[in-house]
Parts: sequence; C-alpha cells; structure tokens
Amino acid sequence: MEMLNKYIATRTHIDGAPQESDFELKTEKFLLSVEAGSNNVVVKTLYVSIDPYQINRMKSFSSSQKASSFAVGITPGEAIEAYGVGRVVASGHPDFEKDDLVAGLVSWGEYSIVKGAVMLNKLDPMGFPLSYHVGILGFSGLTAFGGIFEICKPKKGEKVFVSAASGSVGNLVGQYAKLFGCYVVGCAGTKQKVELLKEKLGFDDAFNYKEETDLNSALKRHFPDGIDIYFDNVGAEMLEAAVANMNTFGRVAVCGVISEYTDARKRAAPSMLDVVYKQINIRGFLAADLMSVYADFISTTVDHLRNGKIHVLEDISRGVESIPNAFMGLFRGDNVGKKIVQIADE
Amino acid sequence: MEMLNKYIATRTHIDGAPQESDFELKTEKFLLSVEAGSNNVVVKTLYVSIDPYQINRMKSFSSSQKASSFAVGITPGEAIEAYGVGRVVASGHPDFEKDDLVAGLVSWGEYSIVKGAVMLNKLDPMGFPLSYHVGILGFSGLTAFGGIFEICKPKKGEKVFVSAASGSVGNLVGQYAKLFGCYVVGCAGTKQKVELLKEKLGFDDAFNYKEETDLNSALKRHFPDGIDIYFDNVGAEMLEAAVANMNTFGRVAVCGVISEYTDARKRAAPSMLDVVYKQINIRGFLAADLMSVYADFISTTVDHLRNGKIHVLEDISRGVESIPNAFMGLFRGDNVGKKIVQIADE
Repeated sequence: MEMLNKYIATRTHIDGAPQESDFELKTEKFLLSVEAGSNNVVVKTLYVSIDPYQINRMKSFSSSQKASSFAVGITPGEAIEAYGVGRVVASGHPDFEKDDLVAGLVSWGEYSIVKGAVMLNKLDPMGFPLSYHVGILGFSGLTAFGGIFEICKPKKGEKVFVSAASGSVGNLVGQYAKLFGCYVVGCAGTKQKVELLKEKLGFDDAFNYKEETDLNSALKRHFPDGIDIYFDNVGAEMLEAAVANMNTFGRVAVCGVISEYTDARKRAAPSMLDVVYKQINIRGFLAADLMSVYADFISTTVDHLRNGKIHVLEDISRGVESIPNAFMGLFRGDNVGKKIVQIADE
Repeated sequence: MEMLNKYIATRTHIDGAPQESDFELKTEKFLLSVEAGSNNVVVKTLYVSIDPYQINRMKSFSSSQKASSFAVGITPGEAIEAYGVGRVVASGHPDFEKDDLVAGLVSWGEYSIVKGAVMLNKLDPMGFPLSYHVGILGFSGLTAFGGIFEICKPKKGEKVFVSAASGSVGNLVGQYAKLFGCYVVGCAGTKQKVELLKEKLGFDDAFNYKEETDLNSALKRHFPDGIDIYFDNVGAEMLEAAVANMNTFGRVAVCGVISEYTDARKRAAPSMLDVVYKQINIRGFLAADLMSVYADFISTTVDHLRNGKIHVLEDISRGVESIPNAFMGLFRGDNVGKKIVQIADE
C-alpha cells in the first residue's frame, strides 16, 4: 500500500542557533510494505524524542560526528534519525511482526524504514504510557541514571549541583540523587522552573541563573560547604563557576554543553589549578556506553514510578509539523522536562 | 652549639613570574640542638628539591593554598618548606638519631627544625646517590609513576603524549610509559631537549613546541591515529590541542599547569564537545594522594635503575644562594630534568 509520508529535513547545514528557515516539511511516497528478502522493518512513529545533541549532527562539521553511529552528520534534505516509539506496520525481520510496539532509532517523520532492524527493540510498556519509553524509561533516563551513579559515584550526603535542572536529563539526575540521599541544588532559566524544582521535584534548592550577575557567588551562596558533584548539561561559565566551588575529589560529569553547541567560540575555561589541587575529575560520557547499568536503571526507575517517588516531567507537542519549533525551543529553554513530539495517536 | 643558618625567603607575595628581587638570602642564629622535652628534629640539608608548584604558595592568594598541608601559603620573610634529603644533627624524637639520613619536608636553607618530625622519614639510600632520593626516588618519581599508571591506566600500545617532557616529572612519565609498552611522544622547548628525549630517553618521537605555529597540527602530525593519554604538565593551548587530538576514552592526567601558574589569565578552554563525544576523562591529581602505589613505585624504579633501563636526568646547582635562580629557571625552561640544589657536601 502506498501512502504519503511526511517528515522533517534540514535545508542546509546549521552552524549557529537553529532557525525556522533551516527546516522543511517534506512529503514522499512511501510503501507500507517491505520487499521480499529484505530484513527491514517499517515503523509508524508514535512518539519521537527531541534532543539538543541533534544540532551537532546538523553542522557542516563537528568532531562529534565521528563519535558514534547515532552522532553521524545529517545530510540536508534527508530524513533525520531520532529515538522514538512506534508500531510495526510491516516487517521482513524474523524478530518483528506487524503491530509490534517498538522503541529505537526511527525518524522525525510519520514512517521510517529501519534497515535490518538495527537499534530497534520490541517494547513492553509495562503498564506505563508510551511516552515514558521515549524519556524517563528511554535514553534520557539512562543518561541521568548512568551519569549520576556510574560516572559520578555519589556517596550519601554529598552535595550535587545540576544545571539545566528542569531539562530532560537534569530533572531526573536531581531526583535520582535526592532519592539516593544527596543534597541537590539545580539551576534553570525561569522562575517557574525554579519553583517546579523546589516544590514538585524535591530539590533541596534551586536558582534562576539568569537572575545572577555572578555565577561564582551564586554557587558559593548555595554551596557554602562546596560542591562534590556537578552534573553539567550546559558548559561555558557555569562549568567554570562549578569548578571554582568544587571540593577536593570533586567530580564533573559532562553530559552535554548546550550553551556551546550553537556557539563554537563559547568555551569553558575552568581553572586547571583548581583541577590539579582539588584533584577534580572532569568526565565526558555518552549514554550509549552505559548499557552495563541498563538493567539496574530499568528496575530502579520502575520501582520509583510504581511507588510514586519520581515525578515524570514531559513536554509533549503534537504532529510532525511541530518538530522544528520543538527543537528550536530546546535552545531557547522553552521546554520543561523531556521534549517529545507525538506524531500519531496510539 | 649556635651557628649561622642561611636560608632563602620571599620578600613579598609573588603574583606573576618570579623575579630576583622577590627573594632574599637571610641569615639567622641557629641552635644545633633541641630543647629538652621537644620531639623536634634538627636537619642539615644536603639536597633540596626545586619545584614549580612553590610559586602557588608564594601568591598573595591561590585556591591551591587550601589544598593540603604542603600547599599552604608562604609568609614573606619566613623559611620556605621544601622536600629534600639531609642529615640529622640533633633529635628529640625517639625515631631519629644524630647522623641519620632523612628525607622529607626540610627548607630552602642550610638547616631546618622539623617540628615533631612531621613528614620526615629515615632514608635508606639503597646504594643510590642521595640526589636520586629527591628526584627519581622521591616525589617526582612517585608523581610520574602514580600519574601514568594509577591515573591514566595505560594499555600496551596506547599512544601517550607528555608535555614538559624533559622536566622532572615528564621525562620519567615518558620513560615509564615506554618501558611499559606505550608509544610515547614528548614536547619540550629547545632543540637540545628534543634530541635528548629521542636519543637518550628512548621517546618514540619529540618536538620543540616553540617551533610550531599551530599546536593542533603539530599533534595531528605526531599522532595520526590520535592520542590515548595526555600527561599534562603545562595547561593552556597545549591542553586544548591535546583534547582536540584525543581518541575515544582518552585520558588527561593534569599533573601541573606551569604556563598558567604565573599568568592567571592564561587558561585552557578545551572543547567540551570533544570531552562529551569522545568521553574524555580529565583528572587532576597530587602525588600525596598516590601513596597506595608507593611500594610498587619504589620496587619497579629500583629494578629499572639496577638494570640500567631508566635514565636519571638531574640538573644540580650548588649552594643556598643558587636557589632563587634555580627556581626562576623552572619558569624559563632552563632546567633539564629534575632541578635540585645541593646545599652541603655529603
């Protein structure tokens, strides 16, 4: 059966902040079947993840594009692979049947052909909304869980600072760290987000970085005894201020540096004298290399969800057409929690 | 018995590059005996270590001064504690007797009173020159050994880059890494040093960073397959270039950042995008926290020395008066290998 498939593509490479004119909604003829002998799977997208890292794939050049298969450069005009949840509409692969729920690399479009079913898995929703499997039970959750526990190795009572703390990963980092027994302070960019962190998500404290003239002093005020762990989602000045306020054997997990993604000149220059003398460990990581904690992540998170101990913060738009704005909004700080686009009704 | 003790002190705090006028040679009356009931030890200095980190103690303010007991600020006019080797001339401490050889925190002077014998140890020279116990068998050796093996955890065949590679720590890092089975490239600031690294110390390659207009390209040329480990002694642009040329799961051991010590505005701003996507680990460390590898360090190094496998690179001046110039020379790159001042004949 031939359909029309709508999807979002970039028009050109994007080397600064993304603009509406950088994207186009394309329509292609699309077969809802697989060729004989192929092991491809055709997936109808239900929910798709909107993530800041995609901007690095859209650049004309970025060293990140060599990092791993999910980070490769995006060719303007072509479909954009993205993590999502969908339903199988046709399968040539023995592991998948029509109507199976799946999670994996689909695309910013209504339908995707997942060649050889690479990075596609059957999905058991375990009684949770499908959108959870794009965020809290998907890569955002794994990034937060693995990032805080495996990369930072917190001890109970340690002081944790999280930037972009109302974002998809940050909000979960803070919640995991609190549930584990750390003291957690987050920063965000609006008063509403700050309230949310303190009142709904159980952060010990939070502040609006846009209201601070001196981040160093702001952190000194919130961490009079210093920071043991900084979970960095933003880079630049915030990373510098965090290092300046760090305790001996402090750890920085560098998860993302959103403020540097759209401005290559914007760079963190933390004091290396502090790094030496405080024996600080600054460590970049990717969720794809945290699969060793996957089972623990799922069981812990499912427990927290069933016991009502963790708050799910989702920001869901509807329709393929809304993807460019949803994506651009990440860099403006529009989203509260995990940004997801629902592409079709379940 | 009362003697005259000559020692070096700073005249003021030093917040830039050290100048001759920042130092003075002082003379004080000194008793070669201990008071009854005291557990102090009076030590005649034989060899004293000249180390770049002392500049951070001389500053009017540096965050480093809170880091540990050996990093505390130096008060102008007072004796300057430094690691060295000496002979006990009087002791009130039960563990030490007159004429014992000792290693530990003495001072930039002829005689020191080591209160409570804190950080003082009896020294068994094991048949090696006493100067070795200030350098290769002292903290420089421990820093190099612990830094490369404990902090960087190399695998055989990995590519190692060492800056300030003819310096006290750098030359040993390179030699240890080579003996372990790594590919090692060093950089230094003169043609003679570069020759030395390649011809005497067994580095696979070396280059003069002062002859390079673009450090990034220089590293690309020397590491076409990327850097796995960067042992950083200098900071600033070199750290940036190393991160840019680093492989996935690359490790940076930040041992010192000499180019930043005398210019607080000079800071490394490595690409955090590289840090994230290449999952780079940047880790500052202090030798004082590497005591867990001390036994292994000594046995391995003694073996290498006895088998003639490791080259001892020392740069020895004579006399208390030579200390200021020896120290200033560290920041000009004068020294080749471990800078030591011999204060008295053995």
